[in-house]
Amino acid sequence: MSEKEKMLAGEMYNPSDPDLAKERHNVRLLFHKFNSLSELDLEERQKVLYQIIPNSGENLFVEPPFHCDYGSNIKAGNNLFMNFNCCILDVAEVTIGDNCMFGPHVQIYTATHPLEFKARNSGKELGKAISIGHNVWIGGNATICPGVSLGNNVVVGSGAVVTKSFPDNVVIAGNPAKIIKTIDND
Amino acid sequence: MSEKEKMLAGEMYNPSDPDLAKERHNVRLLFHKFNSLSELDLEERQKVLYQIIPNSGENLFVEPPFHCDYGSNIKAGNNLFMNFNCCILDVAEVTIGDNCMFGPHVQIYTATHPLEFKARNSGKELGKAISIGHNVWIGGNATICPGVSLGNNVVVGSGAVVTKSFPDNVVIAGNPAKIIKTIDND
Amino acid sequence: MSEKEKMLAGEMYNPSDPDLAKERHNVRLLFHKFNSLSELDLEERQKVLYQIIPNSGENLFVEPPFHCDYGSNIKAGNNLFMNFNCCILDVAEVTIGDNCMFGPHVQIYTATHPLEFKARNSGKELGKAISIGHNVWIGGNATICPGVSLGNNVVVGSGAVVTKSFPDNVVIAGNPAKIIKTIDND
Repeated sequence: MSEKEKMLAGEMYNPSDPDLAKERHNVRLLFHKFNSLSELDLEERQKVLYQIIPNSGENLFVEPPFHCDYGSNIKAGNNLFMNFNCCILDVAEVTIGDNCMFGPHVQIYTATHPLEFKARNSGKELGKAISIGHNVWIGGNATICPGVSLGNNVVVGSGAVVTKSFPDNVVIAGNPAKIIKTIDND
Repeated sequence: MSEKEKMLAGEMYNPSDPDLAKERHNVRLLFHKFNSLSELDLEERQKVLYQIIPNSGENLFVEPPFHCDYGSNIKAGNNLFMNFNCCILDVAEVTIGDNCMFGPHVQIYTATHPLEFKARNSGKELGKAISIGHNVWIGGNATICPGVSLGNNVVVGSGAVVTKSFPDNVVIAGNPAKIIKTIDND
Repeated sequence: MSEKEKMLAGEMYNPSDPDLAKERHNVRLLFHKFNSLSELDLEERQKVLYQIIPNSGENLFVEPPFHCDYGSNIKAGNNLFMNFNCCILDVAEVTIGDNCMFGPHVQIYTATHPLEFKARNSGKELGKAISIGHNVWIGGNATICPGVSLGNNVVVGSGAVVTKSFPDNVVIAGNPAKIIKTIDND
């Protein structure tokens, strides 16, 4: 397996691998451009945005600045909106359903490291995929941790730290996030 | 009522309204400029800052970058200081007293959405005004949620998530924030 | 004592002091440059980075944007990695051991203010030194509060708000952060 294949399989991989380093370099050039353009260049900015997140549906809109690790590992549905300063560490796949909205400073991290410092200092690391359902609203400054799955129609309170998975139709909040309400979507 | 009047009245409104979209566009051009200028252009930067937050008293100082939705719905007293990367979603009024200081990454959100996904996906949304008293110090990375009022002389701990209102002379911290101390200001 | 000496001694000092103001101005010009450069200018960017954090060991790597108060009060060991949008308010010393990694949006604040508003509004403030051991991994969006010491090999969970000190070999998380696990590093 290549380092990229290990990475996407959730196994320990070496991020210094030249192919991975080159992919990260390329997307950094792209979001450097995206983050520099104003709304006077909105058409160009949207073009660059779809280069950053190519596996995205229609009506993707992201308020700059935006940062990510690869971009290509984000698989987004239609109508995704992200507000200012969102950050997605997509060393594993981040799947996002249709009609999702992320507030400002939302952090989505698939990237993780060994807890034991010797293994961590080896430089090898791993990712755990994150899955976000349809119609999910993530409040500003919330953090989604590696391996989390959120069901459809979930609402994540501002500033929540989501350390585990949750089913459909719930409001979660707090650090660590817990269910504070169920939503009647019928 | 115009969509802007509904928005400021805290009613459901349509953010795609052309007049609102134009106001948001204009302020984005302004803070793109503000966020691009260095302290070598401090005079120009301060001039742009007062265009972003025109309803502000004397001695406004904001460390870039700064982001907001309209800017014009922030009504700030004298001597407001905001550190790096603060974000104010002012779809409803954000009133700030004199002598307030915000640490880095402070998030102030009036913007909110319906909990039910069908209503949320309609694109209509609403704002709940936020009021911050005089002499309030908000610690870095704290989040102030829609509808919150903070009394005078309040201190908000770093990283707090403030989901309800608090009276004068208290220190609040945690997620959700609670009173952890009262302050003797006599 | 000069205002700078008082500041570094953890005493109340006046940040409007011209010498301190000039130091802050100079580092702001530097990180404005650092934050503007893309990876196409990586060599130049690394040069500027070592001007921002001159008291740093080998293999310092910081993903822009980065913000700090002085930069010169950060004393970092070898192999420090900081991800996007970290912020260090180094009005007191921030000591960082070897082989540390900080996730995105990590906030490290030595800067603090009096709780009583009259003293706070005087403009005088103080710093409390922060010490971070070797092999520490701070998860993204975590906040480290003034005066905190973290031992060697500590892992700080994403979104944690660290309000007190912790010994070696622990995982801490939550707001306020508590020990959730000990790590066997033998």
